[in-house]
Amino acid sequence: MDPLFEIALEPAAKGARGLYDQIRAAILDGRLRPGARLPATRKSAAFFGVSRNTAVDAYDRLLSEGFIVARRGSGTYVTERPPLAPRVAPDPGGAPDKRLNPFWLRPDIVADIGFWRDEADSSTLPAGEPALDFRPRLVDSRLFPFELFRRASAAQLRRLERKPASYKSPQGNQGSYALRAAIVEHIGVTRAVVCRADDLIITSGAQQAFDLLARTLVTPGKSVVAIEDPGYPPMRVAFAAAGAKLAPVAIDAEGLVVDQIPPGAAVICVCPSHQFPLGVAMSARRRAALLAFARRTGAVIIEDDYDGEFRFDGGSLAALRTADAADQVCYVGTFSKCMLPALRLGFIVAPGWAVRTLTAAKNCLDWHCPTPVQAGVATFIAEGHLMRHVRKMREVYRARRALLLDRLGRDFGAWLAPVPSCYGMHVAAAARAALDFDAVAEGLAGRGVKLHSFSRYYLGAPAAEGVIFGYGVVDLGEIERGLALLRRALAG
Amino acid sequence: MDPLFEIALEPAAKGARGLYDQIRAAILDGRLRPGARLPATRKSAAFFGVSRNTAVDAYDRLLSEGFIVARRGSGTYVTERPPLAPRVAPDPGGAPDKRLNPFWLRPDIVADIGFWRDEADSSTLPAGEPALDFRPRLVDSRLFPFELFRRASAAQLRRLERKPASYKSPQGNQGSYALRAAIVEHIGVTRAVVCRADDLIITSGAQQAFDLLARTLVTPGKSVVAIEDPGYPPMRVAFAAAGAKLAPVAIDAEGLVVDQIPPGAAVICVCPSHQFPLGVAMSARRRAALLAFARRTGAVIIEDDYDGEFRFDGGSLAALRTADAADQVCYVGTFSKCMLPALRLGFIVAPGWAVRTLTAAKNCLDWHCPTPVQAGVATFIAEGHLMRHVRKMREVYRARRALLLDRLGRDFGAWLAPVPSCYGMHVAAAARAALDFDAVAEGLAGRGVKLHSFSRYYLGAPAAEGVIFGYGVVDLGEIERGLALLRRALAG
Repeated sequence: MDPLFEIALEPAAKGARGLYDQIRAAILDGRLRPGARLPATRKSAAFFGVSRNTAVDAYDRLLSEGFIVARRGSGTYVTERPPLAPRVAPDPGGAPDKRLNPFWLRPDIVADIGFWRDEADSSTLPAGEPALDFRPRLVDSRLFPFELFRRASAAQLRRLERKPASYKSPQGNQGSYALRAAIVEHIGVTRAVVCRADDLIITSGAQQAFDLLARTLVTPGKSVVAIEDPGYPPMRVAFAAAGAKLAPVAIDAEGLVVDQIPPGAAVICVCPSHQFPLGVAMSARRRAALLAFARRTGAVIIEDDYDGEFRFDGGSLAALRTADAADQVCYVGTFSKCMLPALRLGFIVAPGWAVRTLTAAKNCLDWHCPTPVQAGVATFIAEGHLMRHVRKMREVYRARRALLLDRLGRDFGAWLAPVPSCYGMHVAAAARAALDFDAVAEGLAGRGVKLHSFSRYYLGAPAAEGVIFGYGVVDLGEIERGLALLRRALAG
Repeated sequence: MDPLFEIALEPAAKGARGLYDQIRAAILDGRLRPGARLPATRKSAAFFGVSRNTAVDAYDRLLSEGFIVARRGSGTYVTERPPLAPRVAPDPGGAPDKRLNPFWLRPDIVADIGFWRDEADSSTLPAGEPALDFRPRLVDSRLFPFELFRRASAAQLRRLERKPASYKSPQGNQGSYALRAAIVEHIGVTRAVVCRADDLIITSGAQQAFDLLARTLVTPGKSVVAIEDPGYPPMRVAFAAAGAKLAPVAIDAEGLVVDQIPPGAAVICVCPSHQFPLGVAMSARRRAALLAFARRTGAVIIEDDYDGEFRFDGGSLAALRTADAADQVCYVGTFSKCMLPALRLGFIVAPGWAVRTLTAAKNCLDWHCPTPVQAGVATFIAEGHLMRHVRKMREVYRARRALLLDRLGRDFGAWLAPVPSCYGMHVAAAARAALDFDAVAEGLAGRGVKLHSFSRYYLGAPAAEGVIFGYGVVDLGEIERGLALLRRALAG
C-alpha cells in the first residue's frame, strides 16, 4: 500500500466516485501537497476496490481539471497551483433575471437544449459498473483512428506556417477550399449528392448549420417552420431562437405526413433517410409530394442527413437533395457521426441563391471554423482514411444492429415492435402494450442504463410510446446486458 | 528552363498573377496533365520574373485549392483529379430573394459584415510587390511558434484516445475545464482579471462571444444597445442581427462619452483599454461614470479587450472588469491576437447570473468549440508558451509602433496627428487638414498599400477623418515603404 493513501485519504470512501472525490478533496484542503507524487493507477485501483480502467478515468478527470499533472516516464503529481474548487452556478429558482432575453428562460427551451444534460451522470454510478449508454447520436471515439488523424493534422499545421498573414486573418469565407473539395468527393460517393465546392458552407457541426439556416431563412415573428414531430429537440430550439413559428408535423410509416404541412410554411425540416428518432425512411411517394409542395409554394426544405453514411440492407432511397432538387433543398451533413462530434465540423450544401447570405451570416456567427481542424479533416478525407473508417464502422454497426433486432424480436415481442429502418446508429421500437416507458427509462437510469423513451422527442403531445436503442457506444456484450436489464424491468 | 513551361505555358503572361493563373488554367484545360511534375519554385520564379516567395505563395494557393500535391522529398505534381473550376456566386443584383431573412440583404449589414472582404485583393497586385497591409486586427502567423503548438496539440490528441465516448459526445458545456483553468491564470497575470473557471464560456473567437451575448442579452425589437462610434462593424452586425436597437455613442479623448448613453440602454459595448479603432484609453473618471450608470440602470457592459496583452508605456489602467464590477461586466477576450485568428478561440468572463443562459445559448449555436483545439491551446498556455510568445511579440510590436510614431511625427505633421494610446497592434491618426482620406486610401490600394480610413468604422455620420495604421503584419522595412508611398500620395 502506498503510504500516501494511509496519510491523506480515508479508506472509508471507496468506489469509483470515492477515488476521484477523495483525491480531489485532499488536494483542495492541502492534505495532498503541490508536487506530491500520486500512486500508480494500479495501486489506486486496488486501494479503492475498483477496476484499473476506473482508476485511469478518475486520474484522467483530475488531469483534465488541472488538479494533477503527468510527467512523461516519471509519474503523476499534484499541480503546483491547483484550480479553485468549481462553484456550482446558482439555480435561477427565483424570479428570472430581467437582463436576459426571456426566450432562454422558457421551460420548454431549457428542456430541449438540455437534451444532453444527463451526459455527466455516469460519475454517480456504483463503482465498477460503466454506464450502458443507448442514447442515440453518440459515437465511440475509441474506435477512431487517432494516429492517422494526428498525422494528417500535423502535416497540415506544418503547411500553415509558410503562409503569409492575410490568408489566415479572420476573413469571412465558406470554409477551406481543400475541405470543401474533399467533401464534394465524399458525399458524391457515399450519398450520390452532386455539388460543387462553391455550393458548400462549412459549419461547426450540424447544430451550427441549423442555427445558420434558421437565422438566414427565418424572418423573426413571421416565418412558419414545419418540423417533424417527434424530432431532434436542439434543432427546433435553433429555429425557435430565430423567431420561427414552429409547426409540428406527424410521422407515419412513410415518413413526414406531407398533407399536414401548413400551406404557408417557409421552411420544412426533415430527415428523409432516417427519421430522427423513429428511423423511418421517407417513401418515394412522399418525397415527390414534398418536393412538389416546395416547388409550388417556394418553401425551402432542410434535409438533415446526420448518419447517411451508414446504410444497411433494403435501403434504396438516396438523399432527397438530387440535382433536380438543388434549388429547393439545403442539405446538412456532419462529421460528428462518421468521425467524431468533438471535431465540431459539418456543412451545408446550399442552393445558389442562398450561398452569399449564408456566408455573410456565418461570418457574423464566428467568421469560420478553426483552420487546423478544417485542414486536418480535409487531408483525412483526401487520403482515403474517412472512407476506410466508414467502411469499418459500417460493419461494427451492422453487427450491433443485427444483434439488437434479433434480441428485440426474440425476447421483447410482447412489449416492443422495432420500427423498420435502413440507416444509421439507432433503432426505435414502438410500444405494443400500454406501458409507462418514461418510468421504465427512469428506473433503468438508476441501474446505469441510459435509454431514451420517445416522449422527450415530441414537441406536441406524444403520439406514440416506445424507446430508442442507440448503438454508437455499446458493444455486443453491452447490448446483451442492457437488454437483459430492460427485460427484467418490463417483466416487473 | 524547364521544358514544361515551353510546352504548356504562354511566356507572355508573366508576373505573380500570371504564375498562378497560367498553371491553374493549364491544369484545367489539360495542358498540364494529372501526375505531371511541376518545376521547382526557383525555376518558376525565374521564368515568370517574380520573387521566390511569390512563386511559393502561388504554389501554396494551388496546393490549398487542390490543383497540385506535394510529395515529400520528391516534388510537386498535378493532382490526379483537379477540382472543378470555382464558380463565382451570381450577384443578387436583381430583386432580393424572398426566401431570405431581409435583414441580411440590408446594404449597411452587407457592408459591415463584409468588413474583411478586400482580403483577397493582394492577388491582383503587380508582380514582385507584396501588399503592404496596414489593416488593423491582423496577425503575422510567420512569427507564431507552430512547432510548439503542434507538439502541445499532438500530446492532447493522444489523451483523447483513451476517453470513453460519452465524454466527447456533443454535450453542451462551457468549454474544456483545462482550457478555462489555463485562461484564469493567463488573464490573471496579463490583465489582472480575477475570476474562476466556472465564470468562463469558451467561444469561437470574439465574434461568437458578441453573437452569444447579443442573443442572450437582447430581447428582439426591444433592447437598446449602446455602441462606440466609430467601432468594430462586425460587432454591431451581431447585435443588429439579434434584434437590438443600436444607439451610437461618440468617443472623445477620454473614451466613450458616457453622458450620451441613452438612459434606457440595456447593453453598452465598449473597448476601454484600446478603443477600436481610435485607440484611446478610457479615463478613470469615465470608467467610474460608466460603472455607476450600469449599477443605477441595470445595464450590462460588454468589455471587448481584443489586444490587452500588448500594453506599452504610459498605460496604467487595467481592465474595466474588476472584482467589484463582476456583476455588471461581461469581459470578452480572444486568442486571435495573442495567438492566431485561425484557431477561432475566445472567451467570455461572465457574471454569475448569466453563465447558465450563456451556456444554453452556446449549446444552441454549436454545442462547444472543437476539443482538439481547446486541448492544444490549454497545454500551450499551461506550459508557458503563450506568455513567452506574448513577451516576444510585445517587443516586435513595440519596435514597429515606435518607428511608426517617429515617422508620423517627423514626416506627417502637416496632415496627421496620432491619437494617443498605450495598447495594441495599431495606431490611429486623425486628419489635421481637410483631406479626402477615403480617396487617398483608395489610391494607395492600387499601389498595394492596404490602409483603412476612418469612415468605414462609423455607424453614424463620420465625426472625424483620418487613417488607421495596423502593424500586425508589416515589418519595419514595410512600414517605411508604406509611409513613403502615403507621403507621396498626400504631397501629390
